[in-house]
Amino acid sequence: MVATVNDYDIEIANVAGEFPSHSHEETDEFFLVLRGPFELRLRDSVITLREGDVYTVPAGVEHAPRAEPGTRILMVEPRGTLNTGDAETGTAGTRLV
Amino acid sequence: MVATVNDYDIEIANVAGEFPSHSHEETDEFFLVLRGPFELRLRDSVITLREGDVYTVPAGVEHAPRAEPGTRILMVEPRGTLNTGDAETGTAGTRLV
Repeated sequence: MVATVNDYDIEIANVAGEFPSHSHEETDEFFLVLRGPFELRLRDSVITLREGDVYTVPAGVEHAPRAEPGTRILMVEPRGTLNTGDAETGTAGTRLV
Repeated sequence: MVATVNDYDIEIANVAGEFPSHSHEETDEFFLVLRGPFELRLRDSVITLREGDVYTVPAGVEHAPRAEPGTRILMVEPRGTLNTGDAETGTAGTRLV
């Protein structure tokens, strides 16, 4: 977490690997790719984001992030949001802040 | 404005010039510099941000943005926040989305 805006957290993270599919029932989740590519596998499609691309996953939409080593993203979400949302499994990917 | 997260706007803008000093009484304002440098002149100091730097101006704190042509920033703030805050003068700088 690098900054806050009112009751929102701004996070910058290096990510690598596949993260379990999950959704956030209560909140949207915003991604800006600082160094890509970064994939969001949705139920019926795959969103591939490159450096400078942005994407907001709407509340309730299942998404599985996936990245190669070296990927760096910025996220915006309400304070206390779990990055794994409702996933019951552990996080498979690696998150290095 | 490039995306929303719940009731927040994410904006990416090319900015140049000096903007009038202003504050936002009701909200913090977050800046990420995508291409710098970008200056925030506060009452008693000047914050110089370079590519990748982030800064949150707390609610109520006066700040005057300043940038050379070619500067690109990302901002996060509640929907409907005026970039000029409480400034009564027009915007002197140039904002090109």
